[in-house]
Amino acid sequence: MDSRMIAFVEKKIAFVERMGLAVVTLAPGYVKLSAPLKGNENHIGSMYAGALFTLAEVPGGALFISTFDVTKYYPVVKEMKIRFRRPALTDVTIELSLSKKEVRRIQADVDEKGKAEYELNGEIRARSKEVVALSYGLYQMRANGS
Amino acid sequence: MDSRMIAFVEKKIAFVERMGLAVVTLAPGYVKLSAPLKGNENHIGSMYAGALFTLAEVPGGALFISTFDVTKYYPVVKEMKIRFRRPALTDVTIELSLSKKEVRRIQADVDEKGKAEYELNGEIRARSKEVVALSYGLYQMRANGS
Repeated sequence: MDSRMIAFVEKKIAFVERMGLAVVTLAPGYVKLSAPLKGNENHIGSMYAGALFTLAEVPGGALFISTFDVTKYYPVVKEMKIRFRRPALTDVTIELSLSKKEVRRIQADVDEKGKAEYELNGEIRARSKEVVALSYGLYQMRANGS
Repeated sequence: MDSRMIAFVEKKIAFVERMGLAVVTLAPGYVKLSAPLKGNENHIGSMYAGALFTLAEVPGGALFISTFDVTKYYPVVKEMKIRFRRPALTDVTIELSLSKKEVRRIQADVDEKGKAEYELNGEIRARSKEVVALSYGLYQMRANGS
């Protein structure tokens, strides 16, 4: 993995760094991130909704930098949805991926129109592998200068 | 305003306290909260999505404690959506309210069924009053012990 990319994901945004979000795996088309329960508890001791949201939002950007040419394009998050299924009582992880076919589609769209939309669906899992939350993100990739 | 309620909203959840979220007004059926840009910036200097989300999520709980009897009931957030309309380049605020009619409906539902759902829609505004993000939250009120 590229240490500069990992540092960007974990430390570039202070809000993200403060919650202890960490890269487990970062590769073209695939990212796995983790967040500790400790320091991110709500008033009843499970993980606070805003921490779960942040864990679901960051991988959109992380996948972007590991998959596309950041000297030519940048991502914008347009919309996020998160459904909380059960309390998160342990550290949690999320995995997100973009297929090679979808990467080609996004690249073709941005080359043609100067921007391209893409969706990411994630599952946040507790240590038990139980899904604690489901996320949906709508992102837009834009060519620099557009 | 009740200083214990303000302290609960601002300080009970460390994640929320770390971002500097503050109560502007907290009354039965109405809440206004603020968040500073400073410390909550993303990699391009506008407010990070997770901070905007948290500002949109907290008022669901804040409204609950200012409106309902917290010795008998508690709230659970089921789902949140947030649509990012433009970059937030200043401190931001959100206002949320529940009408007296809706409060009566929720109270009647929880008395009858032991739980009641309610929705909250918010607008996050920059200092210019421009709406930077729109939020939707689905909450459930439950009777203690249910």
